[in-house]
Amino acid sequence: MSAARRYRAILAYDGTAYQGFQRQVAGTPTIQGAVEAALARVIGQAATVLGAGRTDAGVHASGQVIAFDVDWRHETSDLLRALNANLPMDIALQSIALADAGFHPRYSARWRTYVYRLYRRPVRNPLWDRDRWRVRAALDGPAMQQAAALLVGERDFATFGQPPQGTSTIRRVLRSTLDCQPADGGETCVYTITGNAFLQRMVRCIVGTLVEVGRGAMSIEEFSAALDAADRSRAGPTAPPHGLTLVNVEY
Amino acid sequence: MSAARRYRAILAYDGTAYQGFQRQVAGTPTIQGAVEAALARVIGQAATVLGAGRTDAGVHASGQVIAFDVDWRHETSDLLRALNANLPMDIALQSIALADAGFHPRYSARWRTYVYRLYRRPVRNPLWDRDRWRVRAALDGPAMQQAAALLVGERDFATFGQPPQGTSTIRRVLRSTLDCQPADGGETCVYTITGNAFLQRMVRCIVGTLVEVGRGAMSIEEFSAALDAADRSRAGPTAPPHGLTLVNVEY
Repeated sequence: MSAARRYRAILAYDGTAYQGFQRQVAGTPTIQGAVEAALARVIGQAATVLGAGRTDAGVHASGQVIAFDVDWRHETSDLLRALNANLPMDIALQSIALADAGFHPRYSARWRTYVYRLYRRPVRNPLWDRDRWRVRAALDGPAMQQAAALLVGERDFATFGQPPQGTSTIRRVLRSTLDCQPADGGETCVYTITGNAFLQRMVRCIVGTLVEVGRGAMSIEEFSAALDAADRSRAGPTAPPHGLTLVNVEY
Repeated sequence: MSAARRYRAILAYDGTAYQGFQRQVAGTPTIQGAVEAALARVIGQAATVLGAGRTDAGVHASGQVIAFDVDWRHETSDLLRALNANLPMDIALQSIALADAGFHPRYSARWRTYVYRLYRRPVRNPLWDRDRWRVRAALDGPAMQQAAALLVGERDFATFGQPPQGTSTIRRVLRSTLDCQPADGGETCVYTITGNAFLQRMVRCIVGTLVEVGRGAMSIEEFSAALDAADRSRAGPTAPPHGLTLVNVEY
């Protein structure tokens, strides 16, 4: 008789080398695949890993939440150590705890928070390029902040992403803020968004459109009208994945 | 007739993939070798690159200073763009300017500043591991700061490193400070040191010894006595290279 129990863990990763969270065909490096391989080595049995967010290829996480069912007879802290010893260096469990059998990281989640980092500088800074998007144009920070604030509330976000087939594009956003600070030779901006759920590529599409506002290619009024139009063709370009990090999931 | 002139540039790099700044045998990736290869492609002639600091394998830079003599007939800003387009993504010139023919990045330098980043956390954070050293032990920040302050002044630093053959171990340190801040799930500390010059591995050896003080394995009095002894065997272990970044050189 198996005595498998459900565990819940916080996972951090540098997504640079991975084709996203979700397991794909054999041979494609994914976060889910790497954690399942570590579990198989540690536990000696196959287990499926569930995740709160299906982060895209190249997207990072400091607070992804995962769950899996395993039969582990030792201390929970030993399971953390054993898994981290069997994971590649660019993936690491941050904590682990027993969970209710009904806990599902995606369906039980109430709020998810993503951070998108960008920097403005005439030339690239190789030490920043791993998790920040470099924008060449001068950016109007206050205008971007004003546009970002328009996203708070329950609204139709169809302008900024596609939903899973046939489902709603209504999402609730609690926080949407941009914080820009002077940095060595330029400026870095951190965009933070908290919502109940996100459409596919929604955060990257919002950031790409905010940058259009920041560089003066779109006015705040045009941004507002694009949001109200609920029309995918009214958004700006999608920002690249490497600036994005899933930082927190609340239950 | 060649009309080569001397240029001076600020160079930034993520040193992870390189065997240090200094050119070695063919096939060994070095920063100097990569910049010289880019110069050869852009200028069509071989040029030697001089550097302010011979950073070790795995050490980073945001403010390395280099110089080289080339015959370039276009705008200086075009040379910056051409070189960056021909450098790997983990190396980039930050700025470039004409220099006096007698300018030498190493011999003309008056002050060099290095930063060493470390973080304390029970488990690794993959997004931090590229340029910060993870220390498992709890650290006594104030004790480390007190020990760090003892290094300011002109003194014999033989405890913390070896000089080039037969030369002096006396160096002058202007600044030696540690700044620790709470961070997500732990603490990050940034050690900053400015000096006229440094012995081989001196900064990493100082940081490794400061961590001994921080985790209580060495008292401040013992640190002070080790410094005064000018004896290499009295230092703590050498901290790993990936936490170290050359941030500034003054002339």
